[in-house]
Amino acid sequence: MHPLDKALELESAGDDLLRGRTLPEWANMVGPFGGITAATMLQAVELNPQRHGRPIALTVNYVAPIADGDFEIKTRAVKTNRSNQHWIVELSQAGEVKTTATAIFGLRRDGWSDTEIEQPQVCAPEDVEPSVPPFGVAWFDNFDMRFVDGGMPDAANDPVESASSTSTLWVRNNPPRPLDFVALTAVSDIFYPRIFLRRGQFVPAGTVSISVYFHADDEQLAAQGDDFLLGTARAHRYSGGYFDQSARLFGRDGTLLATSHQFVYFKA
Amino acid sequence: MHPLDKALELESAGDDLLRGRTLPEWANMVGPFGGITAATMLQAVELNPQRHGRPIALTVNYVAPIADGDFEIKTRAVKTNRSNQHWIVELSQAGEVKTTATAIFGLRRDGWSDTEIEQPQVCAPEDVEPSVPPFGVAWFDNFDMRFVDGGMPDAANDPVESASSTSTLWVRNNPPRPLDFVALTAVSDIFYPRIFLRRGQFVPAGTVSISVYFHADDEQLAAQGDDFLLGTARAHRYSGGYFDQSARLFGRDGTLLATSHQFVYFKA
Repeated sequence: MHPLDKALELESAGDDLLRGRTLPEWANMVGPFGGITAATMLQAVELNPQRHGRPIALTVNYVAPIADGDFEIKTRAVKTNRSNQHWIVELSQAGEVKTTATAIFGLRRDGWSDTEIEQPQVCAPEDVEPSVPPFGVAWFDNFDMRFVDGGMPDAANDPVESASSTSTLWVRNNPPRPLDFVALTAVSDIFYPRIFLRRGQFVPAGTVSISVYFHADDEQLAAQGDDFLLGTARAHRYSGGYFDQSARLFGRDGTLLATSHQFVYFKA
Repeated sequence: MHPLDKALELESAGDDLLRGRTLPEWANMVGPFGGITAATMLQAVELNPQRHGRPIALTVNYVAPIADGDFEIKTRAVKTNRSNQHWIVELSQAGEVKTTATAIFGLRRDGWSDTEIEQPQVCAPEDVEPSVPPFGVAWFDNFDMRFVDGGMPDAANDPVESASSTSTLWVRNNPPRPLDFVALTAVSDIFYPRIFLRRGQFVPAGTVSISVYFHADDEQLAAQGDDFLLGTARAHRYSGGYFDQSARLFGRDGTLLATSHQFVYFKA
């Protein structure tokens, strides 16, 4: 089974309650990779028989580190409207909430459409070397990341500060896997903390909240197959121990699939 | 009492429960202005005696229209960490949830800081005519808005499409009121739906979710006094009946006070 799907395996543990577990292959410095946690929160709604429509918007709040082992996810349909549905989702371990989320699912309708931004003009992923993560964190191995701009600092060198916080990379699951909403959610959190790039070194940092807006429908996601996506992210302000970062995820065909924003704690 | 503070008057209705009411002066086309609802959700946490620290990030989901009259707000401190605190907030009328929110409060710490963007170079607010709203919506009167770019379409004219979705305006409370987190939250939703600008006409549209990242602390907000803020917003993609818009709010002194993002339903 693909490591993404393995992480998203949830079993019923009662009404609106699912049970899952952390996997060593998704481990981050502390707890699992935030992107897999976000995808798991979305998956919990996907699996609820009351679910109406497809993912529209998701916000995930990282409340406390998830310990290795089992967790429970409680999903609650707050309200089902004609065209959309609002959810509150909570992930707990031993009765303690570790992650909260709100999700909006809904029906998409055809109508006027336009995209105002274009994907950055960069080399094809085949012409970029796969990036080697600068230190051993398990979850990196689940993605093939090819940075065309703003790669990770090299911890072996003296810090080199960067005036820009922008990273742009080709990314896909490793091994490749067809794109869907859960996979897109995981990739939305692929961008390492922008403070690392600005400061040219690793500092304590962790996302407190991430929001994902899904611009694509099932058909547009399916059209990407298991191909690379092009992601780009930047920050706007660092102050008081927090900074924001905003990301855009394009298909190789230029379709803007998702925009994502997060607020990150840091110490530097 | 200032109309903003009047709207934020909440009385205790039990443990973690507050009661408030809609005001005719904040009425939008349907229900109250989204910004005042978002500010009210934040205010409910501000008033909770368990509140720890100051606002860091807020996400508000507009679940269903709020009817004229009383509402109840339930706040729940999900977890209090050493440096931050996570909240789930629900606004209900007659037992039916109308709005949900998650809020992160926390302590800010001094450290490395930087702002990567500058406020747009525009005329001073004193050199811009106050904008006259194109149709009679009550809440507009609570703000002095002065558009320097991307003003509202004029419903009296034939639609003139715009290639850009950017609006930039000076805005402050009317009458002026010192800036704080709740006032900043309300202003974060000041930007009319970008689809109106692109299409040059009014179409059905409503925010489904908004997130606000607070970059400023109390001191930086207080330094703005009751002066104008400069806000700018744009969209990235319109598809399947939804679009996103991202906003930046600067003090007149150039301080980036907040960034905000929302996902909006539309029919066009």
